[in-house]
Amino acid sequence: MQGMIRRDPVSHRWVIFAPEKAPILTRSSSEDETLLPGAPDACPFCPGNEATTGAEILRYNHFPHLNNGWSLRVFPARNPLLRVEEDTRPQGNGIYDAMHRVGAHEVVVETARHGGAIDLISPEEFRDVFLAWRDRSADLQGDRRFKYLMIFKNRGKEAGGTVNHHYSELVAFPFLPSFVESRFRHAADYFAFRRRCVVCDIVDQELADQARLVEENEEFAAFCPYAGRFPFEVWIVPKRHLLYFSETPHEAFLALTRIYLAVLRRIRVALGAPAYNVVVYNGPSNYDDFTKNPLQFFHWHIEIIPRICGMNALPLGGGGYINPTLPEDAAAFLKEKG
Amino acid sequence: MQGMIRRDPVSHRWVIFAPEKAPILTRSSSEDETLLPGAPDACPFCPGNEATTGAEILRYNHFPHLNNGWSLRVFPARNPLLRVEEDTRPQGNGIYDAMHRVGAHEVVVETARHGGAIDLISPEEFRDVFLAWRDRSADLQGDRRFKYLMIFKNRGKEAGGTVNHHYSELVAFPFLPSFVESRFRHAADYFAFRRRCVVCDIVDQELADQARLVEENEEFAAFCPYAGRFPFEVWIVPKRHLLYFSETPHEAFLALTRIYLAVLRRIRVALGAPAYNVVVYNGPSNYDDFTKNPLQFFHWHIEIIPRICGMNALPLGGGGYINPTLPEDAAAFLKEKG
Repeated sequence: MQGMIRRDPVSHRWVIFAPEKAPILTRSSSEDETLLPGAPDACPFCPGNEATTGAEILRYNHFPHLNNGWSLRVFPARNPLLRVEEDTRPQGNGIYDAMHRVGAHEVVVETARHGGAIDLISPEEFRDVFLAWRDRSADLQGDRRFKYLMIFKNRGKEAGGTVNHHYSELVAFPFLPSFVESRFRHAADYFAFRRRCVVCDIVDQELADQARLVEENEEFAAFCPYAGRFPFEVWIVPKRHLLYFSETPHEAFLALTRIYLAVLRRIRVALGAPAYNVVVYNGPSNYDDFTKNPLQFFHWHIEIIPRICGMNALPLGGGGYINPTLPEDAAAFLKEKG
Repeated sequence: MQGMIRRDPVSHRWVIFAPEKAPILTRSSSEDETLLPGAPDACPFCPGNEATTGAEILRYNHFPHLNNGWSLRVFPARNPLLRVEEDTRPQGNGIYDAMHRVGAHEVVVETARHGGAIDLISPEEFRDVFLAWRDRSADLQGDRRFKYLMIFKNRGKEAGGTVNHHYSELVAFPFLPSFVESRFRHAADYFAFRRRCVVCDIVDQELADQARLVEENEEFAAFCPYAGRFPFEVWIVPKRHLLYFSETPHEAFLALTRIYLAVLRRIRVALGAPAYNVVVYNGPSNYDDFTKNPLQFFHWHIEIIPRICGMNALPLGGGGYINPTLPEDAAAFLKEKG
């Protein structure tokens, strides 16, 4: 695996250089070697094509007699963004910082079925996806070389999905990505001032205001965030204060599955089955080199971003956000039409 | 003008809510009321259609007898993102922060000619664009309600451009956008540790290394940054330490114009005339409420981002950057093919 990770000295953004992803100007980034035509026969994630994937790390079997004996599989990504290597030492280059592409990158095939609406799967079956996320993230977080464990799903071509089969991904980073570092920093400032977790306070206010609430159950709240970047962005937040996804108690996973599928059903019905991204914002792994202990001030949550109306453009060139849809209007629309 | 500006309490991102930009699900964000067909007759920025724009703020006339007496015009945006209002006080809403859409938004029509390659314009004529940026940004920075002045250009549909006539925009924000706030913070940390400007150090290292250098003249260096987010990203940086674009001495503008047009010519020729964004990173306006004085540690520069190969996707869902092209390869390609 060629390439490296480099840090911009002005913004402190880490950038992963992956030359194998696209030789200069010869193909678009939406192409990928894992991309096969959508027909089930050619899908690398369908039963019968297990040999086309990496060695299996985890397998669940909700229906013992179906689909070659599995209903969920986890394996290393075929073209991993990061890979377990020995040399994890950052290197200097004058004023610049770089490191090897150390990390882990795994794929979770969420169901044996090809394509279709995810919310038609029963919560009892789909819960296995969250149990797999829990088990794999608990394992990867234990590796002291990794600083952050991200769980995400790119569903549909506009969202970066490459196969029409429901799958999600785990990436263990050797650095704290800038998009989570700023969240930790501001949440720590909030805690220093208020002695309360900012995410707990958000849940309290959303439950009180009701105007942006989309779904609620005994363990979770789902709402369009007050300053969401994208139209119809929805966050799913545990009511319990929990730093890591992997700490979620077993009895809460069915409630998580119910609210997650209910939100995705509303998005599918109300917005016409758009492509979407799901991202789990997690506590930092091995935070001994993080200046503050995040146990009290950070709180895992899921952000779901439907990819509608060309919102990927940098609307101001520089990366600012302009959102045409107020969260209150988005929540009302999802509740009425979804 | 409806809408407001809100701040996310976890990430501290400010988001501008602009309901007039797109009623729920009825049109894509790439449409805009200013969008007219590309033919010169219908272009709102062509000579003869001056009445379709807002009241003129500035006019230059490089060729006195041509084009209704102008070669460059500046006027308020027809659908401004922000507008000068009286009530600039941020408001609380429980734990949340919001403010009115206070600010300024101006359009610079860079030439009377419709369409075509910008680098075919002579540097002597094109320098007027930079003089207009200087004059308008100096004026807007003087308004104490504004915290940041951004200058940018969206050229081509993939880059968010709405009209096939060369134009750029100035936006004065009532807040410090998060994408510049983090730059200031890290540049301040660098200065605290090294007692040198990080951007000055970058220029020194790029001139010494040569590997990422694309163009150089007596006043400016242009290079593919060491940890660029996007393939063929190019920064143009003044060799002099200058906080604001508007402080650039008059005698440096012809050198700026020459290097800017030379870089855009290389991008056009080597990459097949892609859409692109240009963003000027400027010092913060009225930084009396910024904790540190940025005069010593920040340094204005231009970032040019060609929009090739679907790089707008959030490749990791959460906003991380994956770049398939090493800056050294990009610089070599631009120098060889451009």
